[in-house]
Amino acid sequence: MGEPMDSLVRLVEEDDAILREAVKDYTVADLADGWYELDDKQSLEVFLALNQEMRSELISELPSTDQQNLVVALSEQATRNLLEKMDPDDLVDLIQSVSPQVRTDVIGHLSEEARKEAEFLLRFDDDDAAGLMTTRYAAIRADLTAGQALAFLRRAPEELETIYYVYVVDGLQRLSGVVSLRQILFAADGKKIVEIMERNVVTVRDDTDQEETAKVLEDHGLIALPVVDRWNRLLGIVTFDDMIDVIREEQSEDVYRMSAIGGDAEEYLESSIPRLIKRRLPWLVLLLLAGTVTTNVLALYEDLIARFAFLALFIPVITQTGGNSGTQSSTLMIRGLATGHLHPDLIGKALVKEALTGLVIGLATGLVIFLRSILLPPGVHLVEAVALAVSLSSVVLFASLLGCVVPFIIDRFGGDPAVAAGPLMSTLIDVAGLSVYFEVSKILLS
Amino acid sequence: MGEPMDSLVRLVEEDDAILREAVKDYTVADLADGWYELDDKQSLEVFLALNQEMRSELISELPSTDQQNLVVALSEQATRNLLEKMDPDDLVDLIQSVSPQVRTDVIGHLSEEARKEAEFLLRFDDDDAAGLMTTRYAAIRADLTAGQALAFLRRAPEELETIYYVYVVDGLQRLSGVVSLRQILFAADGKKIVEIMERNVVTVRDDTDQEETAKVLEDHGLIALPVVDRWNRLLGIVTFDDMIDVIREEQSEDVYRMSAIGGDAEEYLESSIPRLIKRRLPWLVLLLLAGTVTTNVLALYEDLIARFAFLALFIPVITQTGGNSGTQSSTLMIRGLATGHLHPDLIGKALVKEALTGLVIGLATGLVIFLRSILLPPGVHLVEAVALAVSLSSVVLFASLLGCVVPFIIDRFGGDPAVAAGPLMSTLIDVAGLSVYFEVSKILLS
Repeated sequence: MGEPMDSLVRLVEEDDAILREAVKDYTVADLADGWYELDDKQSLEVFLALNQEMRSELISELPSTDQQNLVVALSEQATRNLLEKMDPDDLVDLIQSVSPQVRTDVIGHLSEEARKEAEFLLRFDDDDAAGLMTTRYAAIRADLTAGQALAFLRRAPEELETIYYVYVVDGLQRLSGVVSLRQILFAADGKKIVEIMERNVVTVRDDTDQEETAKVLEDHGLIALPVVDRWNRLLGIVTFDDMIDVIREEQSEDVYRMSAIGGDAEEYLESSIPRLIKRRLPWLVLLLLAGTVTTNVLALYEDLIARFAFLALFIPVITQTGGNSGTQSSTLMIRGLATGHLHPDLIGKALVKEALTGLVIGLATGLVIFLRSILLPPGVHLVEAVALAVSLSSVVLFASLLGCVVPFIIDRFGGDPAVAAGPLMSTLIDVAGLSVYFEVSKILLS
Repeated sequence: MGEPMDSLVRLVEEDDAILREAVKDYTVADLADGWYELDDKQSLEVFLALNQEMRSELISELPSTDQQNLVVALSEQATRNLLEKMDPDDLVDLIQSVSPQVRTDVIGHLSEEARKEAEFLLRFDDDDAAGLMTTRYAAIRADLTAGQALAFLRRAPEELETIYYVYVVDGLQRLSGVVSLRQILFAADGKKIVEIMERNVVTVRDDTDQEETAKVLEDHGLIALPVVDRWNRLLGIVTFDDMIDVIREEQSEDVYRMSAIGGDAEEYLESSIPRLIKRRLPWLVLLLLAGTVTTNVLALYEDLIARFAFLALFIPVITQTGGNSGTQSSTLMIRGLATGHLHPDLIGKALVKEALTGLVIGLATGLVIFLRSILLPPGVHLVEAVALAVSLSSVVLFASLLGCVVPFIIDRFGGDPAVAAGPLMSTLIDVAGLSVYFEVSKILLS
């Protein structure tokens, strides 16, 4: 964080002019990072001390509750000025995140043109490419010369999100090419755009999923990516900074799914308690019910446990180590499949690797538990330590293989490996691990 | 994937001209995605069918084993041409990923100028900002006019990574400002750069960690970010597309750490078996040894288990559900802290939220296990089911609280919550859960 917020807080009580001077040392990123430290009154004062441009930049970076508080607290004129300055895509995000009542208010404050723009963008699903796009792009006709295009760009409104790519459209708004500002600069003045433009434009359709959109932009190293409808008409562009947000968001969702948390990647403090319960309880109950299969497996050995109670002491060690080993291997597969470095038909290669890795890791952990259980309290007999070591080695190997196979299988059937690998796998690993442990113990102890 | 690879594979046997024509339908991203499907011979043939520009773009996208194979297989002249066309940052990555022998070869093939450039870049740590930068940026003096600057940019070499930001340096190469191409275009021809340039340039130091660098670029929505040394001399720039890779890489590392896998985010197929063992075994053994504390706890109840063997049947259910609930809550904290949405001083707020959520989830899972254990086989008595329900409810609540607190504490002491939360937390949860379970059972059963 660049500048600490508390020095600003002290100035809130002072003269407005002093505060207005002090905020000039802060960047929008500084303010957004530290905004949570301000109470409602302080945040309004600080916000009002900013110039119009910073206000509109800052508000798009704030969590939705803060956005809502500010919009409600601002005067009518201040809201109008704020909204007028905002980028259409940020404006639409704001409209979508505030309460229905505030929303009507916000839309009522827009100018005729801005309202039309917002209403156009609001028609699209906010998880699709079109939900992230802005309509403020530069478009020209193919028969302009490079010199004319440059003159056009020099007069272009400042609000354009980027002028580094210029899209070439026909009279029906259909996208026929793209030319970079760089190409225009390098071309001779009299050269026609149609001669220098790239005709194979990388585009996404309006209903392309946002994750796929981010991948296309990233694969082609683009600053901006045009969004077209099914008649190839240019609707808007998505830019790389919005895609970075998408990548982070999708990543959080992957992590959440692997940790048995459902729903979107919303911010923790913005999630209400009922919402948190709804995201967590169903998965926890599902895992719990799946996990009780172990109870039925253990019931088969109830007599054995009654006779040799010390066997029960190692149950958590077996299940946890098996689970950890399975998680290691499934995580490597899930990430590999998600990032595209692993492909479904490489399952054989991966399986061989996991078999050898699992064997070594299994033998090593078996040795560790053998030594631990005979050397340290509570201490067990040699034969029991052997049973333990054999079971642990087998369950670690088995878990590595299962952790490898299950994500591939789920991927093959079109499921999301990150969601499904958890409950299915851990139950299978526990059942297998405990069965081996008690079977081996039964043989060795009888 | 745009185009399937197998149609290319069929053409490898055909006339070279046909293959050269066919690859024109493929983008670099298509080829990189499908490259793993080609064997060594096929990949060389396809590579040779590409034009120089695509070759140099493609090779920077390939895994290091494929890079190495290609460099070894290409003729001396083809290697020379390839290296000449590559961006310096990609070239340095290539040099770092091939074997020492091939490395000497590659450096020997470089032109005098390219070798100096590469040697300059190779001095920096590849996890730092300077390790990701390119030296091909546009720099001008402050006393140029906008018109002169534009003329300079129009003649600038095509190799420049970007001309959309132009850096203003003095005679000692010290960075004094930045001006966007857009600002130059909007300015009157006679306007001096010094009058329109932004003096507060957002920069990173050469030894800034790559994750921090990505955050700075993202926070400010920049396409490129200048890297300076401690005398503020401009060394190079890092661009947004390299930062997207960093973001993905760092996220993979976070996921790996949470799954008890050490080391960098390397690709699975590139990791050798000894390397995989080294990344996984130490954590597994650490978790195993920590986990054996449960054995000592259970040893306290060995007599109880001997008398009431059915108590052992629910050990996995208690530990797994506690662990899952702790993981849910710690994951939310770890992600929140990592993305900056949660701040260290918000621990109180989070704790209240987790207490209430944990209470509801605990009671609900307690009810589920109560019903499950009396209604379904193996079936237990009412009093046992009560003991089970009480223990599970307590352990879920406890785990939610612990999962909340531990990441904050580790973060406070400067550690990485994702690494340390695992072993410490799961052991504490198991010990607490099993103690409650057996204590409650002891009271109710006696």
